[in-house]
Amino acid sequence: MKTYSERTADELKAILAEEKEKYEQIKALGIKLDMSRGKPSKEQLDLSKDMLTCISENADCYDEAGTDCRNYGSLAGIPSARKLMGDLMGAPADQTIVCGNASLTIMFDTVARGFTHGFAGNTPWAKLDKVKFLCPVPGYDRHFGVTEHFGVEMINIPMKSDGPDMDLVEQYVNNDPAVKGIWCVPKYSNPQGITYSAEVVERFAKLKPAAPDFRIFWDNAYGVHIITENEDPRDDLANILERCEANGNPDMVFVFASTSKITYAGGGISAFASSKKNVEEMLGHMTYQIISHDKMNQLRHVKFLKDIDGIKAQMQKHAALMRPKFLLVDEILKKELDGLGICSYTLPRGGYFISFDAMNGCARKIVNMAKEAGLVLTGAGASYPYHNDPDDSNIRIAPSLPGLDELKKAADLFAVCVKIASLEKILENR
Amino acid sequence: MKTYSERTADELKAILAEEKEKYEQIKALGIKLDMSRGKPSKEQLDLSKDMLTCISENADCYDEAGTDCRNYGSLAGIPSARKLMGDLMGAPADQTIVCGNASLTIMFDTVARGFTHGFAGNTPWAKLDKVKFLCPVPGYDRHFGVTEHFGVEMINIPMKSDGPDMDLVEQYVNNDPAVKGIWCVPKYSNPQGITYSAEVVERFAKLKPAAPDFRIFWDNAYGVHIITENEDPRDDLANILERCEANGNPDMVFVFASTSKITYAGGGISAFASSKKNVEEMLGHMTYQIISHDKMNQLRHVKFLKDIDGIKAQMQKHAALMRPKFLLVDEILKKELDGLGICSYTLPRGGYFISFDAMNGCARKIVNMAKEAGLVLTGAGASYPYHNDPDDSNIRIAPSLPGLDELKKAADLFAVCVKIASLEKILENR
Repeated sequence: MKTYSERTADELKAILAEEKEKYEQIKALGIKLDMSRGKPSKEQLDLSKDMLTCISENADCYDEAGTDCRNYGSLAGIPSARKLMGDLMGAPADQTIVCGNASLTIMFDTVARGFTHGFAGNTPWAKLDKVKFLCPVPGYDRHFGVTEHFGVEMINIPMKSDGPDMDLVEQYVNNDPAVKGIWCVPKYSNPQGITYSAEVVERFAKLKPAAPDFRIFWDNAYGVHIITENEDPRDDLANILERCEANGNPDMVFVFASTSKITYAGGGISAFASSKKNVEEMLGHMTYQIISHDKMNQLRHVKFLKDIDGIKAQMQKHAALMRPKFLLVDEILKKELDGLGICSYTLPRGGYFISFDAMNGCARKIVNMAKEAGLVLTGAGASYPYHNDPDDSNIRIAPSLPGLDELKKAADLFAVCVKIASLEKILENR
Repeated sequence: MKTYSERTADELKAILAEEKEKYEQIKALGIKLDMSRGKPSKEQLDLSKDMLTCISENADCYDEAGTDCRNYGSLAGIPSARKLMGDLMGAPADQTIVCGNASLTIMFDTVARGFTHGFAGNTPWAKLDKVKFLCPVPGYDRHFGVTEHFGVEMINIPMKSDGPDMDLVEQYVNNDPAVKGIWCVPKYSNPQGITYSAEVVERFAKLKPAAPDFRIFWDNAYGVHIITENEDPRDDLANILERCEANGNPDMVFVFASTSKITYAGGGISAFASSKKNVEEMLGHMTYQIISHDKMNQLRHVKFLKDIDGIKAQMQKHAALMRPKFLLVDEILKKELDGLGICSYTLPRGGYFISFDAMNGCARKIVNMAKEAGLVLTGAGASYPYHNDPDDSNIRIAPSLPGLDELKKAADLFAVCVKIASLEKILENR
């Protein structure tokens, strides 16, 4: 089989005509699909049914310590929920704060605190001329959205197969005091599904930041979110809190997680973990912001998930629903695109996405063509700060939400769009 | 009956000795009571039992529009919850945003936005030399905590019987561009239980602020929280949103409310209402901070409370539990303190508190004495910015949490403390 580049212009034109016909046929079907976000499917949400009824009586509303979860109090969360979320994040319960429905809110609020009050007695960022964040790319669009919202200058750090390019990270962090943070999704990263290697984690923990208030924003959003049946040893993420402490940097990392993709995206709980000192500092801010987060929902989660083993059992059920979807997309993309020399992607072992790299200059076109035919993908460029993918090549595919039938249609359509955009690009350059 | 001031020093000393003996007797009982916060009682929380089971099946998790509340989406809240909370706040649903467990968080975040981004295109407050807020006193300590946390200069505005001293408010707001906000609890105010008169509301709506980004922070925390059996016509609060719009100031007010004292303080929903323009601006910030608040809890509230009439019916049940407590405290205080000329208070028609004014210079002493005997009251001075009650006279009494037996003990102890502190103060000045 020849790659497209090896073919003559006439051959390419013939293929293009064929693919365009296919595209028009699919378009005529009037499909309407949204694969723009990593949303759990109905079947995944149904897995948490017992959480609806695990508190049914007034007498059920008390935690183990006898606290009435219906009333005010417990700023840091109920102890059993702190334990549960701490275990999920690799943090002791007393270094874990349980919050509301969205870890994104904790991250936003943490950046906001950096601006309004600063960390550990350092100058509030609002009073500095310039604040910079490192952004491993491609990455999570909402992270970049937060820092863009606060006017932070974002610097792209290329992702390698085992994590961010640490030579670059060290160069920036250890030399530029304006670099105050880095966004990390260390396990099954959004969008590539990469888990940072032990070596990468160790290099993070050993950073010697030029800024005393530099913080690693460690968003462990997919810490237990396997797709494969068993966890691969490569995905056994090193404990950043422990490594930072062991390397004399106990306060350098903020860890975030949530149950959005364990129980309910629209009714979960989230958590923050860090050193005792940082947790105390955060509570010192939070005490002005809230009396307590929703303790009833914390209690519901504890009663339903029970412990870290309960969480892992729940994630096996999610994986069983997710796996066929990822395999189907992989199968179709392989069948349609393999050997054409126009793209690359890796089937991830966990997380929510397939990170697809088209030929340079094609991503935007592919996403637009898909949209015209009824398939909404994540906007091209979304995985980069300022929505600017310098190569215009990365597309995030989110297969979790649709059923298999719909997913097949979507993947077929996607493959056709990739082919057309690639063919036109190659012909353009001939 | 003579007031204490009319008595001779010897008489006062004799009474003091008697009261001190009573104090020691009560102290010996080893009571342990917390009346520091306006916490609902167990019986009040039990009223919302049906909210625990109104979503029991996967099929129950959809709102009227068919949205799966378990999943991501609906930044501003589900439509039925926006309608419910809008009706509670006197705002159209499309001018209402439903948030998480605590309206305090919305207020904090709103002030934070003023600092980091500013309102309506005006300079972010963080970039100004001075930001001032007006604080009707006595008022809600957590309001003052928020603005103190952000370094705002707080200016005391005396409360009159129908609301804040509007002459002073107008003088500050209409002349000083550094005055960016005012904290208001317009109905059954914390702590006095005062409802702003229609005239006061109208004068608010007619303000001509020197600062284009001046905002009224209208915390309608007790909008439906009656204690009496029926609402008094004086408590029919004018609609500030409508009045501001009618007076050409549509964007001048932010309205806040929650169900913390309607359903669960530890598992309720909160809401923000304002002009369409302001709501759009807020959503523009929120979209970086959260994907959606807990929609499951929003749906639970809609299913349980149904509509504004459902809310009012629920509040009748609360009132039936609250009323005997307020009447008991009133009865004891009347019996023990009436006619002694050492204090004043008003039995409120709604809200959560009795605002008690002791003789100047006595509040701190009374609170400390009560604490030593096992009764924790709200810290003296808490109802004032910087915890500084210039007269050291105001004490907030929160009778909602204890049972009647405990409350009787607490009120007896409180009365003794008031007498002792007053006697000592009078004797000091003889």
